[in-house]
Amino acid sequence: MAAAAPPPPPTAAPITLPEPTPSGHTLFTRIRLATIDDVPHIHKLIHQMAVFERLTHLFEATTASLAATLFPPNAPPPFTSFTIFLLELSSSPFPPSQNPHFTPVLKSLHLDLPIDDPEKEAFRSSANDSINDVTVGGFVLFFPNYSSFLAKPGFYIEDIFVRECYRKKGLGKRLLSAVAAQAAKMGYGRVEWVVLDWNVNAIKFYEQMGAQILPEWRICRLTGEALQAHAHVSL
Amino acid sequence: MAAAAPPPPPTAAPITLPEPTPSGHTLFTRIRLATIDDVPHIHKLIHQMAVFERLTHLFEATTASLAATLFPPNAPPPFTSFTIFLLELSSSPFPPSQNPHFTPVLKSLHLDLPIDDPEKEAFRSSANDSINDVTVGGFVLFFPNYSSFLAKPGFYIEDIFVRECYRKKGLGKRLLSAVAAQAAKMGYGRVEWVVLDWNVNAIKFYEQMGAQILPEWRICRLTGEALQAHAHVSL
Repeated sequence: MAAAAPPPPPTAAPITLPEPTPSGHTLFTRIRLATIDDVPHIHKLIHQMAVFERLTHLFEATTASLAATLFPPNAPPPFTSFTIFLLELSSSPFPPSQNPHFTPVLKSLHLDLPIDDPEKEAFRSSANDSINDVTVGGFVLFFPNYSSFLAKPGFYIEDIFVRECYRKKGLGKRLLSAVAAQAAKMGYGRVEWVVLDWNVNAIKFYEQMGAQILPEWRICRLTGEALQAHAHVSL
Repeated sequence: MAAAAPPPPPTAAPITLPEPTPSGHTLFTRIRLATIDDVPHIHKLIHQMAVFERLTHLFEATTASLAATLFPPNAPPPFTSFTIFLLELSSSPFPPSQNPHFTPVLKSLHLDLPIDDPEKEAFRSSANDSINDVTVGGFVLFFPNYSSFLAKPGFYIEDIFVRECYRKKGLGKRLLSAVAAQAAKMGYGRVEWVVLDWNVNAIKFYEQMGAQILPEWRICRLTGEALQAHAHVSL
């Protein structure tokens, strides 16, 4: 709700605010595979996600631990293990680019008003492009899972996140859809992720994308000391 | 509850049923990595699980599709992708064996009475052992997942199943504990799986093993035509 303005003097004419004119602002978007050079941005994005979810007390990641686990030496090819798509934005069209594993998805976004990104400098992309105003706006982290009933792999999405100033513009949908498209291309059977049951907007959004919400399943988690307790029991 | 016996004649002394004598039945158990030779048994076990869960309408796996997806040519090492531990039972001690990736876990189980396994022949193990009465009794299928907050991999357990005649003897716990021990050994942060919310006995069992049940998360699944619809949208 907008803050209340002081009332106009009694004799003044009513103030008519102009309609925002369709000024033709175009934002160009790219979804590409992340590399180890993107880890500093990935670290900041994951931290912002922890803040958004009010779970910073669980946040232990460092740039070093992310690099070591997401991009280890002799890492398996993308899609066979932990994989990140990065969402980037630019006011200039992205040059076409190739990647042996994934051809970046280029699209554009038409806006009435330009987006004011207060963190534009902090999120300047590390990609080596001929255009120089590329900003990292979000990411999706996913990896293979398996359905034994289908005897097929699928993808599990661990994180999907878009920075605040870029939300509500269909960009999260583009990230999720890019994972679904990759799954379909590989002949995979499913894409799965989880949502908090009180997050009604997210549930509605996912259902509109064609997802079923499975009401009966609950996640069981063994971690910390309870996990360590098993180390001495069995092996 | 035992079936009611006919009442004794009025003059007879009260009948005292003998305590079951500890007859020294010992069943030896082994948990080992499955190989492609175990696929026919794995297929039957997954089908039994589908019957148990009343989900046979979702069961599409064949021995060929399981072999192709679980044990593809140039498969990555165990634990880095889809991995199966097989539970085997024998009346003789298992010989010690080595595997470069996982040393089988050998234990024994003391029983008052021998177990009558009506499917003993069908589940005769394909392992090449010096003992010849080895039976496959269950399995656990798991693969790596990832926590971005911890910046650590974990394991996700897709299936855990013990054949009916071997249940309620702590064998499911041994399978789950073997996965937890492997996770702890590898420095992983978590082991996770899902349970149906009405399966109170399973939830109790998992809590006794140290697991937390996360009440708020719901699984979202994109599959079938809804998944295919994205193939034409993004890429």
